[in-house]
Amino acid sequence: MQALVERIEREGRNLGRGILKVDGFINHQLDPELTLEMGRCFARRFAALGVTDVTKIITAEVSGIAPALTTGIVLGVPVVYARKKRPITMPDGFYAAQAPSHTKGGIVDLIVSPEYLAPTDRVLLIDDFLASGQTIAALATLVAQCGATLCGIGCLVEKSFEGGRALLAHLNVPIVSLAIIESMNANTIVVRNPEELLQAV
Amino acid sequence: MQALVERIEREGRNLGRGILKVDGFINHQLDPELTLEMGRCFARRFAALGVTDVTKIITAEVSGIAPALTTGIVLGVPVVYARKKRPITMPDGFYAAQAPSHTKGGIVDLIVSPEYLAPTDRVLLIDDFLASGQTIAALATLVAQCGATLCGIGCLVEKSFEGGRALLAHLNVPIVSLAIIESMNANTIVVRNPEELLQAV
Repeated sequence: MQALVERIEREGRNLGRGILKVDGFINHQLDPELTLEMGRCFARRFAALGVTDVTKIITAEVSGIAPALTTGIVLGVPVVYARKKRPITMPDGFYAAQAPSHTKGGIVDLIVSPEYLAPTDRVLLIDDFLASGQTIAALATLVAQCGATLCGIGCLVEKSFEGGRALLAHLNVPIVSLAIIESMNANTIVVRNPEELLQAV
Repeated sequence: MQALVERIEREGRNLGRGILKVDGFINHQLDPELTLEMGRCFARRFAALGVTDVTKIITAEVSGIAPALTTGIVLGVPVVYARKKRPITMPDGFYAAQAPSHTKGGIVDLIVSPEYLAPTDRVLLIDDFLASGQTIAALATLVAQCGATLCGIGCLVEKSFEGGRALLAHLNVPIVSLAIIESMNANTIVVRNPEELLQAV
């Protein structure tokens, strides 16, 4: 997605230890038109890959909510965001999985109520980052626990040098990223638009 | 907003101790078309109240993000969501305020980076619930700390019997709620559409 790639080139900052600061348009402030375009891009890319009849989108709070919602707006399907703490409104019998937190440290729980994810659901998984892949793997575990079918994985920013794509390969679903960080050095962030490669084929 | 009132009447559950379960369309699962309509309704209601030239929307993670984003989509302005923990991507000099958590217990911090809220900003504050009003008061404090101008407060669901509107009266800005819970007993949730009152005047 060219607009996202250019925004990362212009505003992204390498804070060291693999941390990319993109909180001006992903993690703290949102650009509504850019976020809507993320949803349109996911819808277009997954359709081109034959991922159809999606009935639900799953993401994790907090930063996954915005792109998951715009994807839900474009596809016209409900969005479920996994909670990190069990709210008192959630009944017993919930599904839970764990993942390490990149930007906050420690382990986070991801929790989904069985009320909102059914065995008949065809699920698209959307998140902000694909780095080590462990948060997305935990979300995929929740989908499997519910007995639902995972149809595809979409992330805004893939850090291709952290191996997440390989970790998720066994899930055997298409993985779509809107921008790929190929490398981050002290002064340079190399960002690639995966759609350029598709067009070149 | 009639569609929201009807959804609460149909799916809302009183869990006792003032807790209204609406996680099928606000706090855990999102209905994209309903959420988009929330944004349109806020835009329409604030315009009718003369709230114009908004440059930024502020909300709090987690459940405020979705309606704040759709309001931002409709108004075409950026959305900032206050974080509850300081991410390592946030620089020093951030603004912070505290509020008690209704559904999780304890005190939560609300943190905003000065990078994304400027003294020149005209800010609309959007959140899911207006109950005691303390979360919204904390967000208003953040806006004041930044030196920005608060123009209006919008919430999806106001529990009118918890006194939040009175707590926020000193802010002297319009407060718009899309659905008002007038009372919750063991078996009955009385929901009112504030637009009906407006039309009746």
